[in-house]
Amino acid sequence: MAGDERLARVALTRVLEPGDEAGGRWLREYGAVEVLRRVVAGGAVLPGASEKRWEGLRARGAKVCPERDLAEAAQAGARFICPGEPEWPAQLDDLGDVRPIGLWVRGRPSLRTWALRSVAVVGARACTEYGAHMAATLGAGLAELGWVVVSGGAYGVDGAVHRGALGAGGATVAVLACGVDRPYPRGHTELISRIAAQGLVVGELPPGDHPTPSRFILRNRVIAALTRGTVVVEAAYRSGALVTARSAQRLGRFTMGVPGPATSGLSAGVHELLRGEAVLVTDAAEVAELVGDIGDLAPDRRGPVLPRDLLEPGAARVLAALPGRGTARVAEIARDASTSQDDAIGRLYELQSLGFVERHDDGWKLTRQATRPGRPVFGEGDER
Amino acid sequence: MAGDERLARVALTRVLEPGDEAGGRWLREYGAVEVLRRVVAGGAVLPGASEKRWEGLRARGAKVCPERDLAEAAQAGARFICPGEPEWPAQLDDLGDVRPIGLWVRGRPSLRTWALRSVAVVGARACTEYGAHMAATLGAGLAELGWVVVSGGAYGVDGAVHRGALGAGGATVAVLACGVDRPYPRGHTELISRIAAQGLVVGELPPGDHPTPSRFILRNRVIAALTRGTVVVEAAYRSGALVTARSAQRLGRFTMGVPGPATSGLSAGVHELLRGEAVLVTDAAEVAELVGDIGDLAPDRRGPVLPRDLLEPGAARVLAALPGRGTARVAEIARDASTSQDDAIGRLYELQSLGFVERHDDGWKLTRQATRPGRPVFGEGDER
Repeated sequence: MAGDERLARVALTRVLEPGDEAGGRWLREYGAVEVLRRVVAGGAVLPGASEKRWEGLRARGAKVCPERDLAEAAQAGARFICPGEPEWPAQLDDLGDVRPIGLWVRGRPSLRTWALRSVAVVGARACTEYGAHMAATLGAGLAELGWVVVSGGAYGVDGAVHRGALGAGGATVAVLACGVDRPYPRGHTELISRIAAQGLVVGELPPGDHPTPSRFILRNRVIAALTRGTVVVEAAYRSGALVTARSAQRLGRFTMGVPGPATSGLSAGVHELLRGEAVLVTDAAEVAELVGDIGDLAPDRRGPVLPRDLLEPGAARVLAALPGRGTARVAEIARDASTSQDDAIGRLYELQSLGFVERHDDGWKLTRQATRPGRPVFGEGDER
Repeated sequence: MAGDERLARVALTRVLEPGDEAGGRWLREYGAVEVLRRVVAGGAVLPGASEKRWEGLRARGAKVCPERDLAEAAQAGARFICPGEPEWPAQLDDLGDVRPIGLWVRGRPSLRTWALRSVAVVGARACTEYGAHMAATLGAGLAELGWVVVSGGAYGVDGAVHRGALGAGGATVAVLACGVDRPYPRGHTELISRIAAQGLVVGELPPGDHPTPSRFILRNRVIAALTRGTVVVEAAYRSGALVTARSAQRLGRFTMGVPGPATSGLSAGVHELLRGEAVLVTDAAEVAELVGDIGDLAPDRRGPVLPRDLLEPGAARVLAALPGRGTARVAEIARDASTSQDDAIGRLYELQSLGFVERHDDGWKLTRQATRPGRPVFGEGDER
């Protein structure tokens, strides 16, 4: 994407609300530069915008300063990625005109690579002990099975999921409804920093921007689109987690639910889902079995999809630190690759998405195919 | 069915085990009289019976005395019904060669009529408090919605289901794996007598016969075949309740499961079912919605299927005791019909199956169609 188009998109994250469908149509038809020009410089009203709406957009447009936003983001360790760029997860394009204008990303790993093998686990803020237990167990279990665990960083189920994944030395992504430099909720400041260090914190809103009820709801479509499937752990009727699940359904992703007592109002929403298309799951293996089914990249069936030579130097160093036989722990791998454990975790999940390595409980090992360096590996199938 | 054929079937309930497929084939090909003749009088070995098996059958055949069994049954208030007889529930014929030879029935109401609008609720013996609560709630709720509730009379879920239905002034059927005069388990002697008084106690085994592990398992196919659908409330992996559910599935009946915590081993079997074809249900209304869907006889949509004149005098008296408008309670109806409450309950559920009356919570009222005596009512559809 050309630099000015990119900068215009940065600016537009401050003008258009997430999921603005008319905005998405303008972007598709006129391009970001032209949309921004009209909003900021007083060009012709864009089609379908009422006078009042246009005024609102222009008021916002008057204040944009994309260079400052990028600088602020950089200070918080965040970058901006645009549709079509190398780190852009192509599956977000399934959102059509409600695709994010771009994403602010905090953390080392490649969002695109991580998202290839990711699954969302979401649920009620005011969850029960049971819900928190199931969320943490699923977070840890999916991480141990080599899945990247995506959630919304909220209290309750979301927090338990992230913590479960982090605690298992796993990969986790928090998709926020506010600026990625502005931890929300406040009580999760520490957790979100931890996620940014070991995983990724992602959002559509520019630095410093705050969440609103509609932003929470619209954030859910990003979680749904990014992942291969969404698991709901506890949700009352009309819970936001159900929005994520229905969004996943519409996008053709898998939808799953964790059952609970029929007497629990916090399971009522999940049960409603399970009476529809959603699949009942009770542990991480059942989730992985379902979402892994469609995978081109399931590591025990496929070889690497990228030649070793094309790996980034950091990833190549981590790959070289794995033993030729057997498994190694993250701490050993990090030491041998002369990097931090957080960086090693990020790289290992990237390498797993690319088919070079696989996780077995607490250890990592080379895939069969990756141990045979002489063979052509691009796009090959299972040859065992 | 001719008298000697009938008597031969009575005798054969003491010779052939429930669900004996070869036995069913013999009955179909040779008739009960001939099968009994060969077993008792030493006729030619029936096809497919090994020498050892044949000896076993002959040893049993030597002791049969169907007249004594009928007399003993009568003393316990039980009768014997055969395939093709007026009280035989035709849906049992779906079992093919494992159809019961006949059924011993204790209790006043017509099994055939009751079974038209029945649903099974089964589950673990060693259930949790949660399981017992759900079972009792479903039993009562289904009774209040006018459904006949079928279960196996066992401890745990079964007992709670029967009690729930009885307590709601409802109709319930216990299908036993032993003689209907021999309450099993012993601790349910009182409960089973109560069921025989207000509902029906049914089984394949002749008076005095005892249950065995395989009889418990084979009893389940009768529960499945008799009803429009089976609900499982708590079941560990490889629980007998799952046999009932799978049997229901094979017979094209609805299969339903009540979810529970994913951490509960007693819900694991139910969740396994729910990951297959079974439908998740959390209350009686959801069960009724599902099984009522296929009903020809759902009382609020159809008129009576039988002319009023053809009703038995007892049923006609109960029908006449209902007010022309509004609802009446069982106690009032019983008093006005000069009968017991147990008898009135039996008649009311029969009349409901036949489309004359319907239950609303604690009261009974005439259906719209039943209040218009002049109209032809045989087999007509919804004309509102």
